Amino acid sequence: MDKSPLQTARHGYLPKLPPILRSKLTEIGVTMGEPTESVENQAEMKQLFEKTYGMPIATFVKGSAAGDLKVDRAVNVGVILSGGQAPGGHNVICGLFDGLRAGNAASKLFGFLGGPSGLLDDKAIEITPAFADEYRNTGGFDMIGSGRTKVETEEQFEKVLTTCKRRKLDAVVVIGGDDSNTNAALMGEYFAKKGEAVKVIGVPKTIDGDLKNQFIETSFGFDTATKTYAELIGNIERDANSAKKYWHFIKLMGRSASHIALECALQCRPNVCIISEEVEEKQQTLDNIVDQITRVIAQRAENGENFGVILIPEGLIEFVPEMKRLIAELNDILAANAAHFETLRTFEAQAEWANKKLGRDASYAFSSLPNEIQRQLLMDRDPHGNVQVSRIETEKLLIEMVESRLAEMKREGSYKGKFSHQNHFFGYEGRCAFPSNFDADYCYSLGYTAFVLIANGLTGYIASVRNLAKPASEWQAGGIPITMMMNLEQRHGHMKPVIKKALVELAGSPFKTFDRSRETWAVKTSYVYPGAIQYYGPDEVCNQPTLTLTHEHEK
Amino acid sequence: MDKSPLQTARHGYLPKLPPILRSKLTEIGVTMGEPTESVENQAEMKQLFEKTYGMPIATFVKGSAAGDLKVDRAVNVGVILSGGQAPGGHNVICGLFDGLRAGNAASKLFGFLGGPSGLLDDKAIEITPAFADEYRNTGGFDMIGSGRTKVETEEQFEKVLTTCKRRKLDAVVVIGGDDSNTNAALMGEYFAKKGEAVKVIGVPKTIDGDLKNQFIETSFGFDTATKTYAELIGNIERDANSAKKYWHFIKLMGRSASHIALECALQCRPNVCIISEEVEEKQQTLDNIVDQITRVIAQRAENGENFGVILIPEGLIEFVPEMKRLIAELNDILAANAAHFETLRTFEAQAEWANKKLGRDASYAFSSLPNEIQRQLLMDRDPHGNVQVSRIETEKLLIEMVESRLAEMKREGSYKGKFSHQNHFFGYEGRCAFPSNFDADYCYSLGYTAFVLIANGLTGYIASVRNLAKPASEWQAGGIPITMMMNLEQRHGHMKPVIKKALVELAGSPFKTFDRSRETWAVKTSYVYPGAIQYYGPDEVCNQPTLTLTHEHEK
Repeated sequence: MDKSPLQTARHGYLPKLPPILRSKLTEIGVTMGEPTESVENQAEMKQLFEKTYGMPIATFVKGSAAGDLKVDRAVNVGVILSGGQAPGGHNVICGLFDGLRAGNAASKLFGFLGGPSGLLDDKAIEITPAFADEYRNTGGFDMIGSGRTKVETEEQFEKVLTTCKRRKLDAVVVIGGDDSNTNAALMGEYFAKKGEAVKVIGVPKTIDGDLKNQFIETSFGFDTATKTYAELIGNIERDANSAKKYWHFIKLMGRSASHIALECALQCRPNVCIISEEVEEKQQTLDNIVDQITRVIAQRAENGENFGVILIPEGLIEFVPEMKRLIAELNDILAANAAHFETLRTFEAQAEWANKKLGRDASYAFSSLPNEIQRQLLMDRDPHGNVQVSRIETEKLLIEMVESRLAEMKREGSYKGKFSHQNHFFGYEGRCAFPSNFDADYCYSLGYTAFVLIANGLTGYIASVRNLAKPASEWQAGGIPITMMMNLEQRHGHMKPVIKKALVELAGSPFKTFDRSRETWAVKTSYVYPGAIQYYGPDEVCNQPTLTLTHEHEK
Repeated sequence: MDKSPLQTARHGYLPKLPPILRSKLTEIGVTMGEPTESVENQAEMKQLFEKTYGMPIATFVKGSAAGDLKVDRAVNVGVILSGGQAPGGHNVICGLFDGLRAGNAASKLFGFLGGPSGLLDDKAIEITPAFADEYRNTGGFDMIGSGRTKVETEEQFEKVLTTCKRRKLDAVVVIGGDDSNTNAALMGEYFAKKGEAVKVIGVPKTIDGDLKNQFIETSFGFDTATKTYAELIGNIERDANSAKKYWHFIKLMGRSASHIALECALQCRPNVCIISEEVEEKQQTLDNIVDQITRVIAQRAENGENFGVILIPEGLIEFVPEMKRLIAELNDILAANAAHFETLRTFEAQAEWANKKLGRDASYAFSSLPNEIQRQLLMDRDPHGNVQVSRIETEKLLIEMVESRLAEMKREGSYKGKFSHQNHFFGYEGRCAFPSNFDADYCYSLGYTAFVLIANGLTGYIASVRNLAKPASEWQAGGIPITMMMNLEQRHGHMKPVIKKALVELAGSPFKTFDRSRETWAVKTSYVYPGAIQYYGPDEVCNQPTLTLTHEHEK
């Protein structure tokens, strides 16, 4: 047996398509809406994207394909997976492949290997029907691999163009997150400016859930990843509620945005869930966060409940103003003194040196951190010398700070409980799970949509499947210009056009739903146990979207 | 919504019973086999268990209940959950409850709260039909709670007896692991010797899988817990194989025995899986283990594969002879010098002192450990002053040792790869999962069996449901005397009768299956991705036993 029984069974799953995509290709028309604008910096963006700025929203409708369009002409398309894994990537490729072949069986799909670098170096395999079948409805990006090379310079665009010409590609599909889709937009614009016929289409991928707007209702992978984490959090909650002796501190992947933590909180109702965007909005210090946690622990202790579950978003540390400044200062002084820093052999010497170099506030923030975290800030640096924020063990930092605060409170008589703890970090566990039915359907639809956009001669668009809070039978499909999601941001000292990350909105319905209940969940054990993702069974068990999506689209 | 959709749906699942238990109670006969013997120390055990030693294997058969037996008489039974959580505990209670009520609707089941202490202090609730329904097919022990109090002294047995008399109990059912069932055997013997009518029945629980023999084919919870861990390991393998940049070191719960790690290895085919029992058998040192791991890493690096997955059983450290001796010596010197040790405030002072006190070999072993692990050995001690082995971060210890060995090899030219790593510890994630269909069926059957044993007037037995590698339609049921699983072992300086832990047998089929393939899995990426536990769907997806059980019973 080289495949698990589930893998074998899942190959047979037929993803659901929006009704419009079940039509014959010749019967899919495209309506073009009003011109669009970028989220900010419209004037500058218009200049930067001369050819592709302001294009209209495309919506697929029952009708007939546009005049001179030959959807049944054989085309060659290249596809890459870019950045971190997200469940459903394989289904995007399969949807694209099936679309291409529905158009014309002689069409070809090339999978470029190892992400964008495969496109630069022209390393590709041709996707065959048998090969595609091996990967239907499976997790992972192992079908063609992924990578993090950025394609953003003119020289790189020229290399890509060379590849496209050699392979006679009509289009390139980029399956990626905000950075990769930013690069797709730049590449699409570059080709258009040069009068090259190659089209570029993006597909919104990321478990973090931070690539979205009104038309990209969610990025793919968010559904499966959050369901996997919620399974584990629910299991731990039930363990906590059975053993009644541990406080579990759970850090959750998700980069800057707290969408994952918030979705898991809505699903599992933990005692505490920190939302980074709120911390920033309210300018909370680490001490404020520790206050908030210890208050809950003390209240529960009064009810004899010395256990609980606390969710912590991965990016938290960067949203705490004092830590953000400390990290920025550290990056600066380490960059400016790299050679000298290298000569400091022990942690004690490094810490002492850093403390002297840092300004007063940063030095105070640094000194107040536990040794282990100081160590992580000084020693674990990326190739550019920057602090690797995602590797800082925030969950342990908070445990240590909470522990010492509780000891104080005990001395003062304001806390009488027992505090034992466990820490967890969930991330890699969910990025390559078998896609949920939702993600399997959504990804397959996105891939199919990407083909229809290509067949309609569009470029610089990102595939958009909408009305996702409803069953697939009510989904709509089309595309939006990538520039519509962009603005200008400072990157390495320059203003660059980038897709604006969609952070958790404190005025949005998901956060407000959480906010309305969290005081209750904090004190009164209200855990909900979602259990493992189900691919079979009753509809309510195996065909539900995330609560984030549901709340965002409730009337 | 206070319950997840899966929880609501699972309440409706009807667990499968062995055919014999689907008969009317009056038509279930019991055949008694030959007298049994304890695993070792038969003469001593016979003396210790005067009344309950050597009882025969009981097997339920189609027939009629024994002569004077009144299975339909109303009885009162008490039940406790003891020790760590395992998926399916609630179903044992529900099976027992349904059995009781099938016998006579006036029978009563009392759930003692918080484990054995509830029995000592007579804290109980009566299980009602509505209450039982709330917990059917759910994970956790939150129905009545659990605890780790040991009931083993005469005084405690008397207290339990008082509770039993006050509640007019005919029997007590103890759902627990080896220690709890040992105590159940002692309690049964005590009551029998005193001529008390109260029966004691055990039920084999533990995710660790180390409570088994020919008749107890597996302990409940092992199936669900290993499937949950295998889901996560498979997801991480797929991530490793997609990103191709990390070595993941995964520690797995399971106490002393490596059954969990072995089962996960059989399911997921990682590159390396350490089996503690083999380490002990071969008297391997930590250096040997690091050798084994680095050899695989270097070989894979030669193939350009700088990624992989390594499974590490929780109890490993105690099976490495040098570490076992170090831990024993540390426990001794810390116990003998507790007061002085308390005065040493810094880790450096403690380490220096320990190094002087330890014998030559132990001191050498201690010095060779990374600081963080030395710290864990010195600081994280249980209430008796013993090293808390389960809290030692063996996965990080190995990473650190592997990293420095690879650096050496790089200098020597025998390793040219890149080593980046991630570490994980899975345990709490699986102990309270919704029981798999297997565990839901098995546990319900065990509970029902416990009732039939009680109705037949047996005591000192543990419920036994057999032929588990086959579908439930071929399962058999009955009981075996607990003494059959026992021997004498040294505990706190005295020889005590205890259930002998069933460790991984190196001559057994599961290990041999692993052994035959592991060289291939090490170098050639052979990952299998089990995916999340399924409760619905095709039989091969949702109704399979563990590979351990399958291999142990294959012809």
